Amino acid sequence: MSETVDVTEVGPRDGLQIAHGRMPTAAKIRWIKAMAAAGLRAIEVGSFVPPRLIPQMADTDEVVRAVAGTQGLRVVALAPNLRGAQAAYAAGADVVTIPASATEGHSRANLNRSPAEQIEEVRRIVDWARAQPRRMAVESGVGVAFGCSIDGNVPLSAVLFLARGLADAGVDSLSLCDTVGYGHPALVRERVRAVRDEVGPVLRTLHLHDTLGLGIANALAGLEEGIRSFDSALAGLGGCPFAPGASGNITTEDLVFMLESMGFATGIDLPRLIATRDILREGLPGETLRGAVATAGLPKTFSRAA
Amino acid sequence: MSETVDVTEVGPRDGLQIAHGRMPTAAKIRWIKAMAAAGLRAIEVGSFVPPRLIPQMADTDEVVRAVAGTQGLRVVALAPNLRGAQAAYAAGADVVTIPASATEGHSRANLNRSPAEQIEEVRRIVDWARAQPRRMAVESGVGVAFGCSIDGNVPLSAVLFLARGLADAGVDSLSLCDTVGYGHPALVRERVRAVRDEVGPVLRTLHLHDTLGLGIANALAGLEEGIRSFDSALAGLGGCPFAPGASGNITTEDLVFMLESMGFATGIDLPRLIATRDILREGLPGETLRGAVATAGLPKTFSRAA
Repeated sequence: MSETVDVTEVGPRDGLQIAHGRMPTAAKIRWIKAMAAAGLRAIEVGSFVPPRLIPQMADTDEVVRAVAGTQGLRVVALAPNLRGAQAAYAAGADVVTIPASATEGHSRANLNRSPAEQIEEVRRIVDWARAQPRRMAVESGVGVAFGCSIDGNVPLSAVLFLARGLADAGVDSLSLCDTVGYGHPALVRERVRAVRDEVGPVLRTLHLHDTLGLGIANALAGLEEGIRSFDSALAGLGGCPFAPGASGNITTEDLVFMLESMGFATGIDLPRLIATRDILREGLPGETLRGAVATAGLPKTFSRAA
Repeated sequence: MSETVDVTEVGPRDGLQIAHGRMPTAAKIRWIKAMAAAGLRAIEVGSFVPPRLIPQMADTDEVVRAVAGTQGLRVVALAPNLRGAQAAYAAGADVVTIPASATEGHSRANLNRSPAEQIEEVRRIVDWARAQPRRMAVESGVGVAFGCSIDGNVPLSAVLFLARGLADAGVDSLSLCDTVGYGHPALVRERVRAVRDEVGPVLRTLHLHDTLGLGIANALAGLEEGIRSFDSALAGLGGCPFAPGASGNITTEDLVFMLESMGFATGIDLPRLIATRDILREGLPGETLRGAVATAGLPKTFSRAA
């Protein structure tokens, strides 16, 4: 039997939030269900943020309610604060994921709080979630862990401070996020090791962007350090506000192609996953759909991990 | 001091040979000299093949003569046979590189010879080159070493047979070529190790294509196995005849960005190299220029290896 790697699709959240157009709610729901049917076991379907800030996410409540309970699917919703986490719970999310940023500059710009203040917010969320009758996992991400478009180089100490704080706050699992895609393989290896030394196996996931073309290589570096959980987006959706035209999240199809080729089982039926691009294309006409495997077609040498 | 990695630019040959348009000779020469001035120390500038087969390469003799002797530049020319190698020598190439293919199907389709027959041709070329008054290095590539668009999976034994034969024929250096881009990191690691066990340090180079999005990850895998020489193409020029629209060679700018970020010195001035895309754009209007670093811009965290 092959070893398993978990892939969390974040396109409906991290991809669509920066898309030029707004995908209709019904199309979002159809797309999410089709990806689940193709074998994706975790999908970040939206975020509970004020609609005036991110209008593309205004229907998150409706989307979560529509897909909650889908067989075999962990429904993940992002929320920046307790109020959003409560909304995620009320809608039926299985997981709420709370963003945080390692740098003061990015944390202030994105969350209007310092890293230390966001750790306190995460603690409130964990405490509140634990007190509810239904179990909802609370996860959090260490944003700009490999470089920041605002503050530049990010000291390892800032990453460790935030990771330690979030772990102590009691999150179920932690990700290191290359929010702006500045990371490179040597840095990924170094920081995965250092954070794992600091917090242990609660560090589970890498969230990588392909802004500078190193996203899949960075995933490989993480894989070689023992990471077995990755975020990615179908068609490489997403982007960087600071770099118009740049690539977005690492592409789910290409990541899955690499993992399965290397003998890691993802549970995903790749041709069926690729076919869900049609729903995306219809629901978001004019959006650039990326992805090498979808463009070139699966090679005749490809076979899924056993 | 940082460790050095050699990058050979193959865009003028492997890129332009499949381009839709034909780059004017003067523009090719300007581009090659500009890349050399940006720090590229080896450039494959063209191939000595019949113009009726590849009209884009019809001016290779003129190009080699124009750039031979450029300060600090190894001028590489491809030739499939002795006659082409003699033309490369006459024009003043520093290196002639001879293609070969590990599979019967690809070897017949590309060279009209079996792998064993091509080994004999390489032996004739080496013997002839050694007998000349001027030193010209003879290199060769094991084509379709990681999968074949014609024969599918390529047995390791076929790769080892060809590598052994080319090494015994006396080539100065050998590359493993992912001609169609079917490779993945685990396969790259396995085959680099196996071929090095078979032929030793004459295995020097990886020639990788990004057809399925794994090109840079495959380069990382090779780097981790000790490979310190890579082929790549500016703007990711090139492609695959069997997959229209697919990516070509790994992108020089992105490869150099990864290497320098990881602390490997390439000798290349990245902003200056990126600026040479303008010459390419003018000389080949309408051609797709790829590359994440050129699109997103160098991040503020970037610094060259010391």
